[in-house]
Amino acid sequence: VPSGIVPLITIDRSASKPLHRQICDAYRTAIVDRRLRCGQRIPSSRVLASELGVSRFPVLNAYSQLLAEGYIEGRSGAGTVVSRSLPGEGIARRPNAPGKTDLKSGPRPASSRSSILRPVPPWTQARGTFAVGQVATDHFPIHIWSKLVTRHCRRMQIGALSYGDPMGAMDLRECIATYLRTARAVRCEAQQIMIVSGSQQAFAISAQALLDPGDSIWIEEPGYRFAREAFATAGCRLVPVPVDDEGMIVSSGISRCRKAKAALVTPSHQFPLGVTMSAARRLQLLEWARTSGSWILEDDYDSEYRYTGSPIGSLQGLDCDSRVIYIGTFSKVAFPALRLAYVVIPPDLVERYRGVRIDIDIAPPSFHQSVLADFIREGHFSRHIRRMRMLYGRRRKALVDAISEEFGPQLQVVGEGTGMHLAVNLPAPFRDYELAERAARHDLSVLPLSRSYVGKDSRQGLILGFGNAPEHETRVAVRRLRSLFVSNRK
Amino acid sequence: VPSGIVPLITIDRSASKPLHRQICDAYRTAIVDRRLRCGQRIPSSRVLASELGVSRFPVLNAYSQLLAEGYIEGRSGAGTVVSRSLPGEGIARRPNAPGKTDLKSGPRPASSRSSILRPVPPWTQARGTFAVGQVATDHFPIHIWSKLVTRHCRRMQIGALSYGDPMGAMDLRECIATYLRTARAVRCEAQQIMIVSGSQQAFAISAQALLDPGDSIWIEEPGYRFAREAFATAGCRLVPVPVDDEGMIVSSGISRCRKAKAALVTPSHQFPLGVTMSAARRLQLLEWARTSGSWILEDDYDSEYRYTGSPIGSLQGLDCDSRVIYIGTFSKVAFPALRLAYVVIPPDLVERYRGVRIDIDIAPPSFHQSVLADFIREGHFSRHIRRMRMLYGRRRKALVDAISEEFGPQLQVVGEGTGMHLAVNLPAPFRDYELAERAARHDLSVLPLSRSYVGKDSRQGLILGFGNAPEHETRVAVRRLRSLFVSNRK
Repeated sequence: VPSGIVPLITIDRSASKPLHRQICDAYRTAIVDRRLRCGQRIPSSRVLASELGVSRFPVLNAYSQLLAEGYIEGRSGAGTVVSRSLPGEGIARRPNAPGKTDLKSGPRPASSRSSILRPVPPWTQARGTFAVGQVATDHFPIHIWSKLVTRHCRRMQIGALSYGDPMGAMDLRECIATYLRTARAVRCEAQQIMIVSGSQQAFAISAQALLDPGDSIWIEEPGYRFAREAFATAGCRLVPVPVDDEGMIVSSGISRCRKAKAALVTPSHQFPLGVTMSAARRLQLLEWARTSGSWILEDDYDSEYRYTGSPIGSLQGLDCDSRVIYIGTFSKVAFPALRLAYVVIPPDLVERYRGVRIDIDIAPPSFHQSVLADFIREGHFSRHIRRMRMLYGRRRKALVDAISEEFGPQLQVVGEGTGMHLAVNLPAPFRDYELAERAARHDLSVLPLSRSYVGKDSRQGLILGFGNAPEHETRVAVRRLRSLFVSNRK
Repeated sequence: VPSGIVPLITIDRSASKPLHRQICDAYRTAIVDRRLRCGQRIPSSRVLASELGVSRFPVLNAYSQLLAEGYIEGRSGAGTVVSRSLPGEGIARRPNAPGKTDLKSGPRPASSRSSILRPVPPWTQARGTFAVGQVATDHFPIHIWSKLVTRHCRRMQIGALSYGDPMGAMDLRECIATYLRTARAVRCEAQQIMIVSGSQQAFAISAQALLDPGDSIWIEEPGYRFAREAFATAGCRLVPVPVDDEGMIVSSGISRCRKAKAALVTPSHQFPLGVTMSAARRLQLLEWARTSGSWILEDDYDSEYRYTGSPIGSLQGLDCDSRVIYIGTFSKVAFPALRLAYVVIPPDLVERYRGVRIDIDIAPPSFHQSVLADFIREGHFSRHIRRMRMLYGRRRKALVDAISEEFGPQLQVVGEGTGMHLAVNLPAPFRDYELAERAARHDLSVLPLSRSYVGKDSRQGLILGFGNAPEHETRVAVRRLRSLFVSNRK
């Protein structure tokens, strides 16, 4: 319970009622109204007197009256608190006490655009085995991170307390630019980079900056639900474009809606199918964007992890026309609670993005940006990625092996050896939604593939994350999953 | 420069070109393309060999060739780096090198909704004397804060690295609920509180949750520009409602647009005029909301600081119908770079707000939430507020006195003794916009009052922040401001 907060008490010196009575009554009302709660500490008489601009006598007088009436009590070591013996919830409620609102008093209309946000299904925030988007947090070098945090804290300057640059801290942006040019073949300068709180914020800002309500955007079918919804709530028309084993079928997008204002793609590791976009498709997509005057949003969310074949550069790096907005995140390569990601913006759009950023949340918090910059600069970041790539590679192999051994040819893994999740096709008559629901009850957080589709022509399958699934537990978990299949057949 | 990042190099074992030549060529291309920059560290031969899955020999071979050709150089203590003697910007550019984009290649249409975001005028981000929204960061107990950060860092649990609750950390929400009930007479439970990154994000989320494009919202005339723009970019129709010395003129709002879906107000300390909304207007406003089925957004951005008269509770606390969405921030009472604020949401809207929050940025970062919770719980927060209230009270007095002494009756301070800024009326023939522009060149960051109006019927005046204006400098700064007046008269 927070201490030392002075209650809102109004004193009227011209009133005939003596000051100590006014104070006493104000406390009684606040306690009965449940603005002050049982066990809550009340300020010392000295503090209250100084706040009210009165002498301590009326305050001491009021406090002893409240003590006598049993509204407050002395607690050794904890000062004076609101009595714990008062009937908590049962206290005589005033008509307007919180919770007593009569919600039937009249229309309470919310927005239609927020109505399309379907309630988040339980498994989305689940942390059971195979939860998608979870990383091996127990392998993060938390001791090194702590040391950097402590060092920065000791060095913390007063200047760092003011609003920072809406684009983010320049030293972090420099580090990211070097990293992206070197490891992802992204063509960029630090000036083009904006720090955001996550890929999701990058989608939200891009939707505002590039698209108006009614504008069309190509999305992958199947695709990433939360990205899609960011554009839907911004009023955009979603044009689902099917994905095959070379990624988004560009020709299909062109025949559906050539004039779309943007396309949202995951070329390195398609979500959820896991395929990598082929070179031919990449060039087709860039060519379409150039000729139709459209934008491409490249969501490169977990491309750092690739276990087989050659590394593949970003789509942005192939673009000679600055049509690609590149989005990356530290949620997968550091940790999600950090809430740091970035957008690489074409030079002519930087000012516009900056304006939208100010409009939606002014600027990112500064402290962890400098910690992260040091983490990158001192080599911890690339060491961590290398280590995690090996770890996730082993976890993926364990999962693929276990699926093959437990299910045989019944379940087929789609996609390539990259990222932190994989998808399996589900044979008839299984329903992925039912399976996912049942799995959740057995602490298995698998996602139903069909929910990644917008259209009706969906495939049945399961999406399994292996980021937080240690190898030695995988086999047992997959066996548990299989047991759910059996009972589904009846 | 970040170290240890492995460049994106593709090796083809089946090619006739030997491995060391492939590696050497890849580096050369990356350097000429400026993906690798002068002075940038390159990974050790051991790391690169392991990443490429080759022996160290071809790597060592390639490195010695690159050394011989002068593309890389050994730096004692810094490992091997890309040569610093290469002509930096002058390096032979590939046609597709960054910055060479031909922006005239075709249409590059951005959104109209982001076009209404006027370029941010220089003074908005200025930190000169009288900058609005700046706090006395040098009086923040940074040593106590550091100690809490260090303590939390030492205790940091692996669980804290995962995504947190989209509503924010429960312990902080509990602290805020207690604080608001006690000090602001807000009727709330922790479950209704959502942690956001600033008031601005609270506006953005509220716009999405409550209003659709075309819906009307009452805004104060004059009012806070960034709040207004958040609703404008969300497609809402702004209905400016004039403010007098009792706050928003509710009857005027009703006659302009009774059916508005929401009203955005600053009852404790109107921005920018500084008036406090009278009890009569508060009740009128609540009555309007109840009968027309509308929402009220109460922006209580700096109500903690009140220097004269009785403290005044929140509008939300008077509301018996849960029509008020209450918004508060830690930017003014802790520090802006923290990026933490909160919304108190009517119970029936909580799930909807939660959905919108996930849609725009999933969840707030967790670390500083727990630090702040301790800061509040241990009494530092209320102590800091008390101390700052005295400090800002003195600063306001110094400013009011200096204005009166330097300008006499020419400049009149409007509004009440509260908050961290004040407004002055400007007599003819002065133009506030011109004065503000000229002042900026003399390190004085005053805001032109006329820019706070949407309509044409604007008043000329200046808005002066005193949060970061120490008393002993005030007189000199006001004199400097007066000198700009004189030269304007000619």
